[in-house]
Amino acid sequence: MPTLVMKFGGTSVANLDRIRRAAKRVGVEVAKGYDVIVIVSAMAGKTNELVGWVNETSPLFDAREYDAVVSSGENVTAGLMALTLQEMDIPARSWQGWQVPLITNSAHSQARIEDIPPHNVNQKFAEGMKVAVVAGFQGVSPEGRITTLGRGGSDTTAVAFAAAFGAERCDIYTDVDGVYTTDPRICSKARKLEKISFEEMLELASLGAKVLQTRSVELAMRYKVKLRVLSSFEEQSDEAGTLVVDEEEIMESNVVSGVAYSRDEAKLTVVSVLDRPGVAATIFTALSDAGVNVDMIVQNVSEEGITDMTFSCPTDQVARAEKAMNAVRDAGGLEFESLIIDYDVCKVSVVGIGMRSQSGVAAKMFKILSDEGINIKVITTSEIKISVLIDRKYMELAVQALHDAFELDKAA
Amino acid sequence: MPTLVMKFGGTSVANLDRIRRAAKRVGVEVAKGYDVIVIVSAMAGKTNELVGWVNETSPLFDAREYDAVVSSGENVTAGLMALTLQEMDIPARSWQGWQVPLITNSAHSQARIEDIPPHNVNQKFAEGMKVAVVAGFQGVSPEGRITTLGRGGSDTTAVAFAAAFGAERCDIYTDVDGVYTTDPRICSKARKLEKISFEEMLELASLGAKVLQTRSVELAMRYKVKLRVLSSFEEQSDEAGTLVVDEEEIMESNVVSGVAYSRDEAKLTVVSVLDRPGVAATIFTALSDAGVNVDMIVQNVSEEGITDMTFSCPTDQVARAEKAMNAVRDAGGLEFESLIIDYDVCKVSVVGIGMRSQSGVAAKMFKILSDEGINIKVITTSEIKISVLIDRKYMELAVQALHDAFELDKAA
Repeated sequence: MPTLVMKFGGTSVANLDRIRRAAKRVGVEVAKGYDVIVIVSAMAGKTNELVGWVNETSPLFDAREYDAVVSSGENVTAGLMALTLQEMDIPARSWQGWQVPLITNSAHSQARIEDIPPHNVNQKFAEGMKVAVVAGFQGVSPEGRITTLGRGGSDTTAVAFAAAFGAERCDIYTDVDGVYTTDPRICSKARKLEKISFEEMLELASLGAKVLQTRSVELAMRYKVKLRVLSSFEEQSDEAGTLVVDEEEIMESNVVSGVAYSRDEAKLTVVSVLDRPGVAATIFTALSDAGVNVDMIVQNVSEEGITDMTFSCPTDQVARAEKAMNAVRDAGGLEFESLIIDYDVCKVSVVGIGMRSQSGVAAKMFKILSDEGINIKVITTSEIKISVLIDRKYMELAVQALHDAFELDKAA
Repeated sequence: MPTLVMKFGGTSVANLDRIRRAAKRVGVEVAKGYDVIVIVSAMAGKTNELVGWVNETSPLFDAREYDAVVSSGENVTAGLMALTLQEMDIPARSWQGWQVPLITNSAHSQARIEDIPPHNVNQKFAEGMKVAVVAGFQGVSPEGRITTLGRGGSDTTAVAFAAAFGAERCDIYTDVDGVYTTDPRICSKARKLEKISFEEMLELASLGAKVLQTRSVELAMRYKVKLRVLSSFEEQSDEAGTLVVDEEEIMESNVVSGVAYSRDEAKLTVVSVLDRPGVAATIFTALSDAGVNVDMIVQNVSEEGITDMTFSCPTDQVARAEKAMNAVRDAGGLEFESLIIDYDVCKVSVVGIGMRSQSGVAAKMFKILSDEGINIKVITTSEIKISVLIDRKYMELAVQALHDAFELDKAA
């Protein structure tokens, strides 16, 4: 039997009615002859509630306990989805991460998948099970403790299953009907893309376009998993949604494909460090060891051998970053005057594989922002993206201005 | 180190403040030098919510999926309790049933504990962990699927841990400050007992006095686990609450120690079955195989070789009982005219070890109910208890009248 992976996000399983609607979509694919692996998220809002409780209980939480708590929402939806399918006379059972097992490393709260031995699940398919409902987002460490894959980790679970089981396609059902040139909630001219390259999707995902988790796209690109993003709230044809594909499959594209943003950024400045070899390594090794995902980095011009080191990271990792910096100072590993934390920032980026063959995109972007009176705090670039950190109050203005100026409302 | 088991019920961990309060109680015992095993229930209301979802999704649910869903609430509180203790600088970690492992049989939704190998937990105690926080109510089957122990199963988890780890005592923290002569909510004269025998507690628990799960008391009696019921909402001395002890430790007692009731009963009558050997066996084997806990049984006087068989069971097992009876009829195993189901009943019981040495208790009970105009539908008796099934509308009246007439407001 060909295998299909279908992933339903939190809003797609937010209540029993929606679980039934999702189960019907699964039934359509079962009727076509697929063995289906369904990956479910927690009901919308549940994981946030659990994360809130953990943060309130213990701001610098033991990540092993965090994982034990926040993974529970997916177990509920997995069981309910299996029951719903059984009610439709479709043989189904639920699987928790440790039952599959989905084996990860021990990097709790941001674990990486190491192996998904398909034997247990395949044996049940051989015995007549048509649908394996798998709790997304979670796995089990070599020590036998529950791990989670980071927010949005269910997407990664889905792609990893598609790779491990050689699935024909991995359909990501969500609350949007595809990938847009930017967030339609803040820019009414946003346009749905029929296709997007893995590379662009990767940049969009990493920049906070919440359609797909970054790692899921990386994984799909590496294992050549055909990925489709579509809405669970509409009747679907086989051509619905947005296909995420290899670059070669995209004939023409705009120079810029999309404008992304992320509110979930904080800017930290380590004030007055010695400007000498090894200092940057000390800082970013300490942050990395503490599990802080540093994003943008900028070092000021040195004056009299003293400089400031500025970096950004997700807001929920600021406490961890602060602790790590103080620890390395207390241990005598680094001297600095103070640590300035700025929560009132956001990141806005333009992305497009067309940038590779066309110059001047950065200059145009900076001009557009400048014309709107928006000050740029930090800049980073890659081959196909340019990102800036700006004051959060300018976020919508920046996105709309860039979307207009790069004419993203018009197809290539 | 001596070991203490402390169990906190749903209202005792209903929110983060209450979890903190419970953690403080744990801290008091840790300070005394105990290695503590904390058993937690789900936050109040959570399990009911999950059970509701399962029932709405699938009235005749696959019990394996039921267990996968409803066990999740305890995982949340276990993790949050471990984090709270860590914040108090008490080394603690959470354990889910399959991690301990708490091994059960495969009787999903009402599984029985088969073994609790103490090795994993003891190794962590040896490494310096002071508190093992265990998710109550759940275990793992030999097939590696999650099982649950039936409602109130966290009490059983607690006693089983106390037995497996040779604990000095098993303290059950709940929302009442001990065991009462009857439910104070429906009888203002109810009085707290300082001590009660295992046997009486067993009858009270089985009769719906919701202080302790029946099986936990059976287990405590068998393994001589010293059991204490006390409130998590009051400052506690070492003499607080009610001790559940061996009969020999109780010097004097009233003839009747308590009046219990259960709303959660339904009466089923299998109408017009042949009155011949094997019929009762057929009926009750079918019910037992379907996992129905039959409680009271009464067989009407036979007329012309035809009789009615009446029994009671918990209301949430009625659908299952009905299905089992229809299945045995469809299979040609039994003929009957119809199945009458009466949900408007309740069970009221008087319990006391003093009954063993004093006769006339049953007669007195029937007289009291008769004087109030209450019709008795079914009667069962044991050595230390008499139960009657009556119309539900008379429940409070019956309890109050019996409490008064047996003078339970006065100590022995």
